[in-house]
Parts: sequence; C-alpha cells; structure tokens
Amino acid sequence: MKTEPRIYLALVHYPILNNAGDVVTTSVTNLDVHDIARIAKTFECKGFFVVTPVHAQRQMVHRLRKHWDTKGQLLDHPRKAALKLVEPVESLEAAANRVYDQEHAYPTLVATSAKPQRNFVSFHDMKALIRDGGPVMLVFGTGWGLAEGALSMCNLVLEPVKGVKGYNHLPVRAAVAIILDRLHS
Amino acid sequence: MKTEPRIYLALVHYPILNNAGDVVTTSVTNLDVHDIARIAKTFECKGFFVVTPVHAQRQMVHRLRKHWDTKGQLLDHPRKAALKLVEPVESLEAAANRVYDQEHAYPTLVATSAKPQRNFVSFHDMKALIRDGGPVMLVFGTGWGLAEGALSMCNLVLEPVKGVKGYNHLPVRAAVAIILDRLHS
Repeated sequence: MKTEPRIYLALVHYPILNNAGDVVTTSVTNLDVHDIARIAKTFECKGFFVVTPVHAQRQMVHRLRKHWDTKGQLLDHPRKAALKLVEPVESLEAAANRVYDQEHAYPTLVATSAKPQRNFVSFHDMKALIRDGGPVMLVFGTGWGLAEGALSMCNLVLEPVKGVKGYNHLPVRAAVAIILDRLHS
Repeated sequence: MKTEPRIYLALVHYPILNNAGDVVTTSVTNLDVHDIARIAKTFECKGFFVVTPVHAQRQMVHRLRKHWDTKGQLLDHPRKAALKLVEPVESLEAAANRVYDQEHAYPTLVATSAKPQRNFVSFHDMKALIRDGGPVMLVFGTGWGLAEGALSMCNLVLEPVKGVKGYNHLPVRAAVAIILDRLHS
C-alpha cells in the first residue's frame, strides 16, 4: 500500500530576524493564516501550526478557527475545511510534540530559507524522504527569516526557491505554495 | 540567441463572477497588488496589469506605485523593483494594447481557471509556446473567477492547478506563484 505523505507546516513568528538582523517576534497576520491554510488544504497537509509565544495572538487564531467552524458551517464555505488545519502553538518544540501526539513519531524538521545555507537538501531528495513515510514538518519564517534559534532546531534546510535573475523577496505565502507544488509534482 | 520569455500578467476585477454566478466588479486589494508584483518580479515577468474599470481604484494603484518609487528609493527596499511592474488599466483590451505598444506584437491571452474548461492547454505546451518567443499574457480572475466576457477574449485556457484530493479554493496569489514556477521549471 502506498503511504500517504505526512506533511505539516509551521509558520514561525519567533525567533525571527528583522531587516537589521535583530531577533524579534513578528505579528500573526490574518492573511497568512487564511492563505497558508487554503494552500495546505489544497496539498492535503496534515496540519498547519502558527507558532507564536504571544498568548493573545494564539487566542486570535483560535477565534478565527472557531469563526469558520460555525459561520463556515452556515455558509458551506470551502474556507472551513482549510481553517480546520490551523493550530496555534507557543513554540516549534510544541508543534513537534503535537505531531508526535498525532503520529506517534517526531517529525523531521525541515527549515526553508531564501538565504544560501550551509548544506541543503534538494527537492528531489526531499520527495524521497516524504515517500519514505515519516512525518515531515516544513518550517517557514516570517519577517526577514528564521533566526538561528529556529534554524538550529531543524534537521535539514530545504533548497531555496530562487528568482530567475536573483530577485529574492517572495512572500512567504507564495513560497509555501511553490514548495508544496514542487513536492507533489 | 535564446529568446527571453515575454510573460505579462493581468489580474481582472471586471467582468468577474461572484459566488451566486452574477457578473460583478471586485475591489482591488493592496495585498494582491503587492504579492503578485513580488511574484512577477521573482519570475522576471515583463509587466503586471491590474484591470479595473473603476477610476478611483486605478488611481489608488498609481499612488501605491509612486509611494514605492519614492519611499522605496530611500529605504532601498526590494519591493520597489516589484511595484515598478504594476500598471493599472481599465480593461483587458487596454492591457493587450499596452503590450502591443511595448512589444510591437499582440500577446496571446491565456486564461487561468480553477474550473474545468472546454479545452485547455497543458503546462508542457504552454512552455513550448513561451519558448517560441511571442508575448504571452496570463489572465487571472478574482472573486469566483473570470466571467464569460473575459474568458471569451482569451485565446487559450491553461490547465487548472488541481488540489491533491479535489479541494479547489487556492488564493489567486498562490495560483500565480505555482503557475509561474511550473512555467519556469
């Protein structure tokens, strides 16, 4: 029997770099939550963790999800199925633990980065790893990218999505879409 | 000499379907303009037309562009190069005429649609058409998709981007990213 891919997404809001290279906490945006949830559902990801240490922002994500659980029900809106995937957590470690609870296995944490990293895993090798059947969590940064504290928790770094002529300023939402499409091609 | 692809994008706000199947004009959103401009720049598109018959909304897009032309200059922000691609126009016909002005050839208009259409052109054939060197304009809908009045102006309809299990509610911004990535792979 062919194993279904077990891909989880994590969108990290801390620890993140700002444009000056400082480590900061970015704000959760409604837009990222909705867009990435819809993309995750399109590619049948098993979960989408919104990672922030800010309690009030996790509460906001809970409210968003609840809104679509009730209002989406009435409207029979396709957004409901997408928002069901969303789960706010306080840290990347908490996200990994939630995957363990569901899968009885820790996920391989795969950082994504627009910057050239030491060693990276190619899309080709990443597809093979997913086919092997273990859970995988793709970790996306906000702001100006994942800070070392997040990168160092990851097992692998995925090959960057490069612009045709080096332009390197893709929205994270677009990077999620392209990466999941490539992993399913 | 290898010909560079000449890909233009058009994001249509009229004529568009709403969820009841009526033909409507949708609002231009700041988000679509920024995200799609950044994606267009990543893939070296030659222009991005924001199509709306509403004069005030075209003015808003002009202001956005001007803001990044002046403020982006001071900040040396990568968004500036992206916003330079944006041009508001009143109709799809006006967009095609603008391409003619720049390229001395009318573009092949290629509709994108999440719905199954009569005949569509595959990504494989679309890549061949782009390699042939003529200008191509990819036409994206907002709301619940392009209405017949827009579809009937297009020469071709591109193969839809399908969800893994049929979920069909990808944000237009994500569809633009995936389609351009596939056409460059």
